Amino acid sequence: MRIELINTGSELLLGRVLNTHQQWLCRQLADLGYEVSRQTCIADDARQIQAAVSESLSRADLVITTGGLGPTSDDLTRDLIAQLLGRELTLDPETLGRIEQFFAQRHRTMPASAKVQALIPAGARVLRNDNGTAPGLAIEARPNPFRAEGRPSWLILLPGPPRELRPMFAESVVPLLTRELPPPERLVCLILKTSGLGESLVEEKIAGPLQKLVESGLELGYCARIGEVDVRLAARGGGAESTVHQAEDIVRRLLGPLVFAVGDESMEATLVRMLTERAKTLALAESCTGGMIAHRLTNVPGASAVLKCGLVTYSNEAKRDFLGVSVAALEEHGAVSDVVARQMAQGARQMCRADYALSVTGIAGPGGGSEAKPVGTVYVALADEKATVVERYFNPFDRETFKWVTSQQALDLLRRALPA
Amino acid sequence: MRIELINTGSELLLGRVLNTHQQWLCRQLADLGYEVSRQTCIADDARQIQAAVSESLSRADLVITTGGLGPTSDDLTRDLIAQLLGRELTLDPETLGRIEQFFAQRHRTMPASAKVQALIPAGARVLRNDNGTAPGLAIEARPNPFRAEGRPSWLILLPGPPRELRPMFAESVVPLLTRELPPPERLVCLILKTSGLGESLVEEKIAGPLQKLVESGLELGYCARIGEVDVRLAARGGGAESTVHQAEDIVRRLLGPLVFAVGDESMEATLVRMLTERAKTLALAESCTGGMIAHRLTNVPGASAVLKCGLVTYSNEAKRDFLGVSVAALEEHGAVSDVVARQMAQGARQMCRADYALSVTGIAGPGGGSEAKPVGTVYVALADEKATVVERYFNPFDRETFKWVTSQQALDLLRRALPA
Repeated sequence: MRIELINTGSELLLGRVLNTHQQWLCRQLADLGYEVSRQTCIADDARQIQAAVSESLSRADLVITTGGLGPTSDDLTRDLIAQLLGRELTLDPETLGRIEQFFAQRHRTMPASAKVQALIPAGARVLRNDNGTAPGLAIEARPNPFRAEGRPSWLILLPGPPRELRPMFAESVVPLLTRELPPPERLVCLILKTSGLGESLVEEKIAGPLQKLVESGLELGYCARIGEVDVRLAARGGGAESTVHQAEDIVRRLLGPLVFAVGDESMEATLVRMLTERAKTLALAESCTGGMIAHRLTNVPGASAVLKCGLVTYSNEAKRDFLGVSVAALEEHGAVSDVVARQMAQGARQMCRADYALSVTGIAGPGGGSEAKPVGTVYVALADEKATVVERYFNPFDRETFKWVTSQQALDLLRRALPA
Repeated sequence: MRIELINTGSELLLGRVLNTHQQWLCRQLADLGYEVSRQTCIADDARQIQAAVSESLSRADLVITTGGLGPTSDDLTRDLIAQLLGRELTLDPETLGRIEQFFAQRHRTMPASAKVQALIPAGARVLRNDNGTAPGLAIEARPNPFRAEGRPSWLILLPGPPRELRPMFAESVVPLLTRELPPPERLVCLILKTSGLGESLVEEKIAGPLQKLVESGLELGYCARIGEVDVRLAARGGGAESTVHQAEDIVRRLLGPLVFAVGDESMEATLVRMLTERAKTLALAESCTGGMIAHRLTNVPGASAVLKCGLVTYSNEAKRDFLGVSVAALEEHGAVSDVVARQMAQGARQMCRADYALSVTGIAGPGGGSEAKPVGTVYVALADEKATVVERYFNPFDRETFKWVTSQQALDLLRRALPA
């Protein structure tokens, strides 16, 4: 089975916007057992779109497009594809109703241009958009005029905004694919997320012991992100389940607590889950991460049950007033120090009456470094009812990466400290 | 002039890695006045690579590839392209010397496989790699066997790692392009970033009045992100400056304070800049945004000069203890209310001794909504020395979008309130 992806949008070829659809869709499809053969990106230009779509239709069993379904004059995809396949566009009253409702619910006047989004090519299935106005479309080109012997292809048109595309893919596209174009072989795939070791060290620990399973069909992959390494275990066909299961056992035995989650669970979701299960609460005192730890935790539904309070104490004043950090400690050791990190965590825990408190203080840069404490130096402290531990890290990265890595280290410090 | 980009790498089509090359290269080229017509991504597979490269060569004056130049078995691009163009590969002693030096400087033994990277197709120019081992290559296909009448094309092969590709592009590719393929016409391009109106409403306001300029060559584009719409004004050739300037005047006149920045400046960077220029400080009291406003502001270098403190007061307790919100207000009006938002902002301003304070309280969902205050309801308050204003918004989105939109509304509320 051949699958191609076409992303439309002049802003993509002008470099104004990062194409996140490619990775997201490829990842979803891979996890379902599909392989994408080619991805193409073209501008909002009629000739380019028709050329790219007809070329893909000449090769692929499934063509997925993103973008160009909206109401403005540069949204051309729906019209052009209808034209290309010789399908008439007609107004779908149900879709129009949804669009009208979308505006009504938001107490906004529907612009006249919004109506075009309810035009549906003959024979197309409407993929409902619960998070925006333009519906997706699924069209079976049977016969496919662009392919040798008219071999049929599916064409799926998805809207550009990620928060519309992603739920639509999960809710409408996956069931359609499973039914109409099931993957050639059953795929069993498991992702183990690890934190604390780099990619080559993870590989060094597990590749040898897994070699036998790899020889009998296990697909072993690594994906290194900053502060995390995913181990991907996959197998196809009969016996796939048992192969992956054996591999998982080996990896868990070798990596132990480095494995923090299965699948897509983030570090913050892991932590909210673990704290909830243990009925424990958390307070935060952030200096150099500037609220990122609180932000990550509150991305997780249910965070309110465990996060009592977060304090972004950028200034010495705020460290003193809200956390009770002593002026003596600030003067003697500086705001970026073991002693201040400790007092911040203890202060936050006490002031917020939480079971645990995490604090971070460090030098994000670009300015503010010294020889003893260069840019990238961070202290992370964890306080509980019995004790306070402080770790020193060195994260010499750009500002946003620095904040990400530091927040990851802090969250992981608490994760590993929680009783089993 | 037609330009195409080809990104190779199986990890891209498996969705394991985000393709950042597309945006970066397209942006660089656009800023130089070039337009990329198409971008294609294919796996590390000989047939796919040869098909994609020969298709691009049949259409384009310039084809840029990324990836596949390294030493491992899935690095195929150099060999395949030499083969495709019938060019012999010969070992370049100077390049080999550089590779050997690269390892020597790092006190590492050079693996035998590294040597292949010094193989250069006949007639190719070597683009020095100062940050890795694989050099880039520039080949003029003259005549080009894949194009009608043998019309010549340039083929530029760049290494995959961003920190190798980016300096190589700036140091070697830009001078080569300027010399060999100067942009057909000078491009003047201006982005105006707006907040507060959706894409179709922005278009409704400006498209008509700009129509005359569009007819005389203005390129008008929109890019909608959540909570922001970019208006792109571009023109080419003589008179481009004046066309764009006239268009800017029209847009600014029609959209007024909705335009918050020019070019790439984010809302948070705009605000840090404006507060710094006015020597004013800010305090934050965040409930439903959970630290995202603080996080966004502290992504901007220099934020420490304006952000005094951020309080993530998720619980009623924390609203009372840290912000002085009255128990009566919490009981009578609920935590998500005009009155509590007002008290939060006033409390944060006072406690942190800041010039301004922003507060947000709302219902992110999925749970917690009621008929009077459904999920998505938010109150944002802004306090300064004279008064406190409260705005109510309705943001019925998924959790992360909700936080983003709400943080944008809060930042924008302050931005519009700052004296000119």
